[in-house]
Amino acid sequence: MNNTEMTKTTNEFPNKLYLTDDEMPKAWYNLRSDMKKKPDPLINPETGNPVTLEELTHIFTEEGARQELDEDTQFIPIPEEIQKEYSKFRPAPLIRATDFEKSLGTSAKIYYKFEGNNTSGSHKLNSAIAQAYYAKKEGLTHLTTETGAGQWGTALAMSCQKMGLDLTVYMVKCSYEQKPFRREIMKTFGGKVVPSPSMETEAGRKILAETPDNPGSLGVAISEAVEAAVKTPATKYVLGSVLNQVLLHQTIIGLETQAAMKKYGIKPDIIVGCAGGGSNLGGFMAPFLGEKLRGEADYKFIAAESASCPSFTKGEFKYDYCDTGRVTPMAKMYTMGYDFIPPTNHAGGLRYHGMSPILSEIYHQGLMEAHAYEQHDVFEANTLFARAEGILPAPESGHAIKAVVDQARKYPASEGESDGPVIVFCLSGTGFFDMVAYGKYNNGEL
Amino acid sequence: MNNTEMTKTTNEFPNKLYLTDDEMPKAWYNLRSDMKKKPDPLINPETGNPVTLEELTHIFTEEGARQELDEDTQFIPIPEEIQKEYSKFRPAPLIRATDFEKSLGTSAKIYYKFEGNNTSGSHKLNSAIAQAYYAKKEGLTHLTTETGAGQWGTALAMSCQKMGLDLTVYMVKCSYEQKPFRREIMKTFGGKVVPSPSMETEAGRKILAETPDNPGSLGVAISEAVEAAVKTPATKYVLGSVLNQVLLHQTIIGLETQAAMKKYGIKPDIIVGCAGGGSNLGGFMAPFLGEKLRGEADYKFIAAESASCPSFTKGEFKYDYCDTGRVTPMAKMYTMGYDFIPPTNHAGGLRYHGMSPILSEIYHQGLMEAHAYEQHDVFEANTLFARAEGILPAPESGHAIKAVVDQARKYPASEGESDGPVIVFCLSGTGFFDMVAYGKYNNGEL
Repeated sequence: MNNTEMTKTTNEFPNKLYLTDDEMPKAWYNLRSDMKKKPDPLINPETGNPVTLEELTHIFTEEGARQELDEDTQFIPIPEEIQKEYSKFRPAPLIRATDFEKSLGTSAKIYYKFEGNNTSGSHKLNSAIAQAYYAKKEGLTHLTTETGAGQWGTALAMSCQKMGLDLTVYMVKCSYEQKPFRREIMKTFGGKVVPSPSMETEAGRKILAETPDNPGSLGVAISEAVEAAVKTPATKYVLGSVLNQVLLHQTIIGLETQAAMKKYGIKPDIIVGCAGGGSNLGGFMAPFLGEKLRGEADYKFIAAESASCPSFTKGEFKYDYCDTGRVTPMAKMYTMGYDFIPPTNHAGGLRYHGMSPILSEIYHQGLMEAHAYEQHDVFEANTLFARAEGILPAPESGHAIKAVVDQARKYPASEGESDGPVIVFCLSGTGFFDMVAYGKYNNGEL
Repeated sequence: MNNTEMTKTTNEFPNKLYLTDDEMPKAWYNLRSDMKKKPDPLINPETGNPVTLEELTHIFTEEGARQELDEDTQFIPIPEEIQKEYSKFRPAPLIRATDFEKSLGTSAKIYYKFEGNNTSGSHKLNSAIAQAYYAKKEGLTHLTTETGAGQWGTALAMSCQKMGLDLTVYMVKCSYEQKPFRREIMKTFGGKVVPSPSMETEAGRKILAETPDNPGSLGVAISEAVEAAVKTPATKYVLGSVLNQVLLHQTIIGLETQAAMKKYGIKPDIIVGCAGGGSNLGGFMAPFLGEKLRGEADYKFIAAESASCPSFTKGEFKYDYCDTGRVTPMAKMYTMGYDFIPPTNHAGGLRYHGMSPILSEIYHQGLMEAHAYEQHDVFEANTLFARAEGILPAPESGHAIKAVVDQARKYPASEGESDGPVIVFCLSGTGFFDMVAYGKYNNGEL
């Protein structure tokens, strides 16, 4: 490629799409407001009725509970203090992957929204800051949560530190032992990290009495975190995915992407994200899905999930518990079953048995495709991307990359320079803490 | 702080100092051009004479050798292809650390230039890209280097991948075994990583014959890398610090900082960096040192080094070998002695026995202060910074932070809101790969 061509390409499709502070979104977008058929409500398994605001506030912050149930407000203002915190790591870069396009030999124009360039390493910080802010505003002093892979726990530790809140993270014991780096980064940010099952809760003590060597599970950790929140004064429980409020906060990803692409006059054709509980996928796609629901534009949406936990492609659309311990409300969602144990998979963030109720309803309405990918193929795509773009993707994000590779390869460059579609995907996090998995791939063990 | 105050502060001292692509530096700055007394030349220990261009090109690329010896050209144009690669991760953020200031209770205004937000995790990429580019341009197909902590090896692996060059990294064997994550990230980017001492070179075979369990050292790894470069066709050896050419490439850090501060009308009073071999310190400070040398401005310069390898504060200013194996030319520099073995210290990047000859001459002329810091104090400063600013610093960078803390605490906020100096420092890298050391600090073991 000579300089003239390079300049031409750069002008037509810029490599970096900037937003100034003035152009940053000032409100989150509530996708439910534009859905004619809304997601079915959360159900209280004890009463069999939809959960009430009052019931939800037993566990969640008041504002969180309100956001959870609000189906009507289209835009919910982002409080100034949250905007200020966002401004420290946002706008997240939106970048044209020209070198990746070249290495794929495609005429598709590929853009990625990179959510991993903050110390937590992923998009999780977008909701962690919001939830910690509401907790502080409501006079709480302490939050509890659970973490598996550790991205959510890290983001929440950073956010609680910022808001002056104590945090207890119940970390699945085998992760606590196998992922000491994630454990230590949470401690560096002031979080108390407890290996679960622990002696600190009734749930933990009961399990340890029965099985002293129990390695723990996300289900047990949720039970401990909820119990600790309910029994401790001025303490609430927070969660990093699946919930409507989390998707709401994560729409900052999609709103920035939408604003930047409009600013530069680029219309995406295909929109891709990876799906675990749905937090980055939903937040990224929501504003574009809104355009589609309102009949303003049409896009192809692709959810990329793990073949080891294929909720969309192999799950059932039904009411199910949100956690293995059955302490949370029931949600209507695509689910592998609350007691499903996925086979070992390094994409820890994609191992959730269920799926955001909002995204489940969207998928059920036929507005979105879903594909499941095997781990080896994901790391192959990740390595290709890393070498071309100089960013090491998280294994979770690699599922989206694999989906992009498959789409882009349908449009070889040789068949016409400018014929390929514009693809934009969410690169939800970095792989800095996943080098064990990369090592296995490098050594042919995946 | 209320909103009005916040707005006021933001306007007077903005939190993010942006540079547009148009405002980016297009040439590196050669500090030697403004020095009346230049650094003493590199000496060929075999002849006792200054090394010639021809001698240097036996090991280094031609352009690298020319840059090494060029004392006169003030600005050396950055080739377009390097500018293009820089544009993918630069300008590096320049950020006002308002929350850090608050946590220190200081009236100083603190800014940091963050060089760690690229996948290599540090400033090393600035020179790695340049050196790989020149190698490619000169028709080479292969580079060799050594790495200890792994930051340089990672940056060079990314750069060689980008330029289509093979890379062999001789990695100190104990690091190879103790830092598998660094090893694997280099492999992901296509680098061949060889534990040193190895059976691949005469130097390695000789050592292994004598001591089969030899854990390796940087000195041995350099000997292996140089030998492999000299004996392999179309192959040269590259180095990530100390050299004049490396400092030249790293001036992109200081030039961006200088341009952004001028753009926003902010004049720094104190300029701080951490010192190992001098690559980030020299690159960051050079343009400001140039202003001082030309009598255009005055600044206080502070070099922060490790107490376990205090070249500036405890070393001797003399001709010494640049490597333990004595295969490179001799340089006039502050040195602990080529055979100095620093005590165990997690700031792997600050364990070099010597110091950039340019910075050594600058320090010798009394233009710069230097302070040495203990590891525990560095991690304390790092943790304070991380909690306030949401960025996890590399242990190396933490030495600069500790120096900033000491300066800022001389100006308590209570004694007058706006009386403190403007401090700017280089945050040279992230601590993502240093969680073992953070863990030790968290557990009171440092």
